[in-house]
Amino acid sequence: MKKFGFKITPWEVKGKIDYERLIKEFGVQRITKDIIEKIKELVGEVHPLIYRGIFFAHRDFDRILEEYEKGKKFFLYTGRAPGKSSMHIAHLIPFLLCKWLQEKFEANFYIEIPDEEKFLAKKVDSIEELRENVKKDILHLSALGLDPDRTFIFKTTEFISKLYRPAVLIARHITYSMARATFGFTGETSIGLIFYPALQIAPTFFERNRCLIPCGIDQDPYFRLQRDIAPKLGYPKTAELLNKLIWGLEGPGSKMSASKPETAIFLEGDPEREARKIFEAFTGGGGSLKEHREKGGRPEVCSVFYYYSILFEPDEEKLRERYNRCRSGELICGDCKQELFERIKKFLENHQRKLKSAEKMKEKYMYDGKLAKRMWEWEFSL
Amino acid sequence: MKKFGFKITPWEVKGKIDYERLIKEFGVQRITKDIIEKIKELVGEVHPLIYRGIFFAHRDFDRILEEYEKGKKFFLYTGRAPGKSSMHIAHLIPFLLCKWLQEKFEANFYIEIPDEEKFLAKKVDSIEELRENVKKDILHLSALGLDPDRTFIFKTTEFISKLYRPAVLIARHITYSMARATFGFTGETSIGLIFYPALQIAPTFFERNRCLIPCGIDQDPYFRLQRDIAPKLGYPKTAELLNKLIWGLEGPGSKMSASKPETAIFLEGDPEREARKIFEAFTGGGGSLKEHREKGGRPEVCSVFYYYSILFEPDEEKLRERYNRCRSGELICGDCKQELFERIKKFLENHQRKLKSAEKMKEKYMYDGKLAKRMWEWEFSL
Repeated sequence: MKKFGFKITPWEVKGKIDYERLIKEFGVQRITKDIIEKIKELVGEVHPLIYRGIFFAHRDFDRILEEYEKGKKFFLYTGRAPGKSSMHIAHLIPFLLCKWLQEKFEANFYIEIPDEEKFLAKKVDSIEELRENVKKDILHLSALGLDPDRTFIFKTTEFISKLYRPAVLIARHITYSMARATFGFTGETSIGLIFYPALQIAPTFFERNRCLIPCGIDQDPYFRLQRDIAPKLGYPKTAELLNKLIWGLEGPGSKMSASKPETAIFLEGDPEREARKIFEAFTGGGGSLKEHREKGGRPEVCSVFYYYSILFEPDEEKLRERYNRCRSGELICGDCKQELFERIKKFLENHQRKLKSAEKMKEKYMYDGKLAKRMWEWEFSL
Repeated sequence: MKKFGFKITPWEVKGKIDYERLIKEFGVQRITKDIIEKIKELVGEVHPLIYRGIFFAHRDFDRILEEYEKGKKFFLYTGRAPGKSSMHIAHLIPFLLCKWLQEKFEANFYIEIPDEEKFLAKKVDSIEELRENVKKDILHLSALGLDPDRTFIFKTTEFISKLYRPAVLIARHITYSMARATFGFTGETSIGLIFYPALQIAPTFFERNRCLIPCGIDQDPYFRLQRDIAPKLGYPKTAELLNKLIWGLEGPGSKMSASKPETAIFLEGDPEREARKIFEAFTGGGGSLKEHREKGGRPEVCSVFYYYSILFEPDEEKLRERYNRCRSGELICGDCKQELFERIKKFLENHQRKLKSAEKMKEKYMYDGKLAKRMWEWEFSL
């Protein structure tokens, strides 16, 4: 998929992303005002990640809402592939939206931990390299306060006993040509990674209800395949809520990159040290204090403002005020950063406190909770 | 692999097979007199399938014997992929040799039942089509009198909980290019079949000892890959004992084909009716009785003589006598067929009698026997 100036597959995102073109090329729908109104009508409020356009596109989310209105349930599914480093705050985005959707819509939520994917994708040399971060990532997710009876977290290598049967049915419908066209596989790709899409698609068949997947737009190729296959197996096409790729601290289009620790704020490690990274972040401030006071800042391109908007300022009124005070030059970068630093530090301290009881919660999410127990007894049927 | 006048992959065998060229092209070794002598020295006798050249080639079988002589154990592994029809007598060949090897060398024996392979290979339209024959095939194998504490029979979709981890390690070492070159995959191949070789290779890592695989030469491509990968994972290269493709009733080079029931003698069905098929078999007899008496027959190309030699006349002296009486014209086809008919009928009746207690044996082989129990607790480690 190297069609336009950028490249986007589940393994690689390169170049500056033109989301307008992406919507057209991927054939996804924009999240409209009507949809936002409908959410409000149904559950009384709308999550900032949606109305602020971080989740900007969807497939069949309107249908999910229509069906819900008629009394039909849906379930949530997303995943986290452990890699060389453990999670940073940008990784939380889909999970935080899922938590909100779970609460508001009383939906079951399935979290796949593909603990072999990065090994098959040759991002690490041994599967042992991933082991520590598999544990850590599951703990981070277990600290988010998800509903213990409506959440199931599973590792692919462990839940394979249940995943493999649906994956076989799915795999039968995916030829190598399709997989190559969708994911950009080459002759050098391992046969394990070639099969992997079937394992990522399989959880969309965990229930007879429609599945809703909040995830990064880079994961859409998997679920496009799901939507081709599902009707052939008599299951509903999965719906998707797609977020833009989350910026790192180097400004618009930059990434929180595990290989460049200064660009990412990790959930583990000393909260103060992690939060301090914000002081080196790219901002939309003027070149000098004088210039800033005179001309004002540009919050649109500012990493600091961006992090307020996606995670650290849920209040819309206050965010707008911050925006205006920056634009007018009233709010200076130093103060704005200092406040974000404090919020991030507090957020991390709070998260790390919750991590202490996450081990116990983890057991619920993975094995003992109501949904987990049901899934360990589940058999896929057509 | 369409290098010479015939094509041989695990899914397709076409054309008349030149075994001399196959030995060279595949790079396998002929089973020599020295090897036969060594077997005799070690266990006191040699199985007819070996000294009669049905098993004609090997990889590292000499090493297996050397290591055994020094007190080092090996284990046996082979498989049966259920298809549209259940098993016929030609399918028994590797299993009968394994049974003998298991007894003589006190070896553990692992039998893989890839109950999804033919579905992924698009030989059937639904996986349900295979279900009945999966059950039947396992029962047939459970009726062979294998050692219940040294045999483990497993279905891939069921044992996937244990198979997947080693398969991931294996798959990481197999690129699509390698798999395409080895198996002739195309763009139309399903991604499930592309991954499948990793699942067929995985059981060679069930023990730290060397694995010995008696199988048809068409299965060699899988294990050639195993021999590339095993040293990288710190495991021994698997050894192989390779049999020529077993003729059907239409003479040399013909197949027992499930789609042409007249060419195959099935283990199920009325024993008399199945055995009767031998009367229509291609023989090496003269055109007329007079001609046969004068010129003699050609046992080399005779399906009837062939079936005596592979399954129904273990006594070498008696087989030679039969050969000579045919060559001289003394033994006529009608009598020779009648005798084979009776032996086959008796064999099938006997087998079907044993089938009645096979259900109980099956539980041992799959779940309750000593080896089965151990395997359900086994964890793959590097």
